[in-house]
Amino acid sequence: MRITLIGSGNIATHLGAAFRNAGHRIVQVYSRNMQNAALLAYHIGAEAIDDLNSINPETDIFIIAISDDAIASIVQQLAKYDKLIVHTSGATDLYTLLAFTDKAGVFYPLQTFSKTKEVDFRTVPLCIEGATESATQALKELAQGISNNVYIIDSSQRKTLHLAAVFACNFSNYLYSVAQELLAKQNINFDLLRPLILETAQKVQEHLPADVQTGPAARKDIKTIDMHLNLLKGEPELEQIYRLLSQGIIKKDNGGNAS
Amino acid sequence: MRITLIGSGNIATHLGAAFRNAGHRIVQVYSRNMQNAALLAYHIGAEAIDDLNSINPETDIFIIAISDDAIASIVQQLAKYDKLIVHTSGATDLYTLLAFTDKAGVFYPLQTFSKTKEVDFRTVPLCIEGATESATQALKELAQGISNNVYIIDSSQRKTLHLAAVFACNFSNYLYSVAQELLAKQNINFDLLRPLILETAQKVQEHLPADVQTGPAARKDIKTIDMHLNLLKGEPELEQIYRLLSQGIIKKDNGGNAS
Repeated sequence: MRITLIGSGNIATHLGAAFRNAGHRIVQVYSRNMQNAALLAYHIGAEAIDDLNSINPETDIFIIAISDDAIASIVQQLAKYDKLIVHTSGATDLYTLLAFTDKAGVFYPLQTFSKTKEVDFRTVPLCIEGATESATQALKELAQGISNNVYIIDSSQRKTLHLAAVFACNFSNYLYSVAQELLAKQNINFDLLRPLILETAQKVQEHLPADVQTGPAARKDIKTIDMHLNLLKGEPELEQIYRLLSQGIIKKDNGGNAS
Repeated sequence: MRITLIGSGNIATHLGAAFRNAGHRIVQVYSRNMQNAALLAYHIGAEAIDDLNSINPETDIFIIAISDDAIASIVQQLAKYDKLIVHTSGATDLYTLLAFTDKAGVFYPLQTFSKTKEVDFRTVPLCIEGATESATQALKELAQGISNNVYIIDSSQRKTLHLAAVFACNFSNYLYSVAQELLAKQNINFDLLRPLILETAQKVQEHLPADVQTGPAARKDIKTIDMHLNLLKGEPELEQIYRLLSQGIIKKDNGGNAS
């Protein structure tokens, strides 16, 4: 397929490399910043542009990987080429594209990308949605060429998925940082906690998290919970987080519904 | 060394195997439940007992790996043998042992153990503390024989470490379970989230969590936060958790102190 990338950030970079490796041709990379466009374009054998008037219409799909707020105005300018247009956002509806074109879809890779860390794209879950049967089919083929984990997910499911990812990943990472700061105050190296963090994530690769929950709240060890709350005196936000999450664990374990 | 294990749960099982593999002799395994004692004892070539009166005094160290509440009464009964006695608890003070014996210490493996999952003990951080210089030295040698990550950690640091582990691991696992339930309600397979959970934990193996924080709160994307809070309507506890953790992330990013 001939692919045009709109954006040059983490998602565009990782997607571009994966498509290129799968034998697709990246026609152009657009970015408002010519340097960023050029850097990515160079790596994947594409032309760099920083002006939408320079779009080459000889392409099969526009893949938009830019901030959510900027998607609508870009689609508006690309619709005239009458090609398939997809965005890569977890939080944006398909309807944002449908306002401008029928040939619309979503190509959402559910992974956290950093420029400095390679990701094995074959393991990345790709959530696709097409406005038409033929769009879905084209996206499915494109996705299966780079990943073994392709799911057809509608806009409502994708929103829930994005929300769930915030809980499981953004919030977990925040808790890691809270832990790191608690240790730093006592001059304890964060290295002590790193293996435990990794093992906790590895455990749920094969089990359901509720089945492997451990800790004071899971065993209703009120004495330890009280001791921890005592240690958190003077840090009201952390005390509140500790209480709330412990209550959630206790409630869930009681056969109640923590959610 | 000649080692006597008090307890036959996850920690005793993994420690026993690691000591045995390092060439130590496990003299006895004590458990109130003879079947549990026998099962572990069989695997590590020890004698199983379910009565403290059957303790063989020909040992060098008693390692107590039982529930926190039961530690004191066991130490009281073991003190008369005048051997080194250590517990393996993150939440229990060294003083709990010092009330009964001077030859006391702590041997705290900072990892989450399950009976069904092998753990490479050489990567497990071992936090040791001795009541005397010679106890510390003996524990250090014992620990270095089974792990590459041995730390001397006092009781006050250990409490903080235990608290930090609750945040980073028990609470993260709870957030995984919240995410899993959100997905289940929309018939979305938890498999979609598993690679992201693993990658999030892998990222902080080399970076500090605050440096790799992503998500709506990290980029102050109020529109997405509001959409998520809207999705959580009717789940007041989850809404509260979402607000609190998002506030923490926003505050931290402002150069404020979230803790």
